[in-house]
Amino acid sequence: MRPVKALFFDVFGTLVDWRTSIAREAQETLSPLGHRLDWDAFADAWRDEYQPAMQQVRAGAIPFSKLDVLHRRNLDRILPRFGLGGVDGDVRAHLTLAWHRLDAWPDVAKALARLKTRYWLAPVSNGNISLMVDLARRNGFAWDAILGAEVAGDYKPKPRVYFAAAEAFDLAPQDCMMVAAHSNDLTAAAACGLATGHIARPNEHGLGKGEAAPSVPVDVAGKDLADLADKLGV
Amino acid sequence: MRPVKALFFDVFGTLVDWRTSIAREAQETLSPLGHRLDWDAFADAWRDEYQPAMQQVRAGAIPFSKLDVLHRRNLDRILPRFGLGGVDGDVRAHLTLAWHRLDAWPDVAKALARLKTRYWLAPVSNGNISLMVDLARRNGFAWDAILGAEVAGDYKPKPRVYFAAAEAFDLAPQDCMMVAAHSNDLTAAAACGLATGHIARPNEHGLGKGEAAPSVPVDVAGKDLADLADKLGV
Repeated sequence: MRPVKALFFDVFGTLVDWRTSIAREAQETLSPLGHRLDWDAFADAWRDEYQPAMQQVRAGAIPFSKLDVLHRRNLDRILPRFGLGGVDGDVRAHLTLAWHRLDAWPDVAKALARLKTRYWLAPVSNGNISLMVDLARRNGFAWDAILGAEVAGDYKPKPRVYFAAAEAFDLAPQDCMMVAAHSNDLTAAAACGLATGHIARPNEHGLGKGEAAPSVPVDVAGKDLADLADKLGV
Repeated sequence: MRPVKALFFDVFGTLVDWRTSIAREAQETLSPLGHRLDWDAFADAWRDEYQPAMQQVRAGAIPFSKLDVLHRRNLDRILPRFGLGGVDGDVRAHLTLAWHRLDAWPDVAKALARLKTRYWLAPVSNGNISLMVDLARRNGFAWDAILGAEVAGDYKPKPRVYFAAAEAFDLAPQDCMMVAAHSNDLTAAAACGLATGHIARPNEHGLGKGEAAPSVPVDVAGKDLADLADKLGV
């Protein structure tokens, strides 16, 4: 692998623990209103709507919109399934922004600070810019720029998103590495010419339900982001 | 003035001293090749091509391109005027990136760090993303995101650039303040509904050649960015 100049990061699952955070946020919001449910199942159900919603954009069936808009639409879809069809608009708006209040995995902030001394760093996530800013401020991520879906006007794994990120940094795809805990993201990035780095997140979807190792060839794999930084020699 | 959530910054002239930096970079690059000229005049001539080049984009005569591309085109235009028509492509490419190596005015980095504790901060400059990243790394600017012309696909003072910045942060224009040392930038931002903050840069174009005060009504004016932060109560 030749040295790269920039590292691009997937965020949901790779840098932040969306499942625990969404379950907590849902409980904190809905429990005082008298609702009792399986909060982990609620987080999973909401996340299950994520790919189908983006697929409509990728396929051109609906125009691009920020992920916040899709998150709200997906929330509206799942609430009735949990007997929550009566939850009002203000609560729905607050819940939608739960995705702005996710906590990072414990290794991330410190490892990003190390990596920043050698590489340009940007999230290349399907999350919108304001969502990325909220997560960065909450968790102490020091980005050089916010790239990803909103800048590209389409959703990963569409090639446009990876190419747009490289172009924004004036780099060839070969000079960039996509870092993710999801093999499909890395497969798509590699097809665009980017180098790839995998991080294990074996508990992303619950205990033992996540990628403990890549299922595809990658340039480097770490058991967490600190380990990846070690392997990159930072 | 109601409180705002985000501060947007003009960069060339407002945060960085382009004239001294470009004169220095030109001298460092061209002097070893045996060229002798008035380096300040060279910087001024290059900058004089800036607005006309962007005007072609604003008017739709040419498609949007990154400012780096316009800087190169403008350099190619002025070199012959200084007897430098024979300068080769590699030197021209290096000179073009002189705009990535500008030094900040001395008050800026520390004041931005203070302001970041209360506001979301982004450059809303006509410079491209990679240029903004280089300036941020060189001068220690801690942005929340890089917004501006490249994200909007047009150049200030077109309204689209100000609106795109507010939209990226999910804010109404009224919740954002444009900060600049140029009254025309602030006039355009105010017409879009943004609050406005002026910083004096009386020596931007040479001693005594710059805006020592706004020539239009603004919400707040500072003698430098530290003074503006004081006046915002940070």
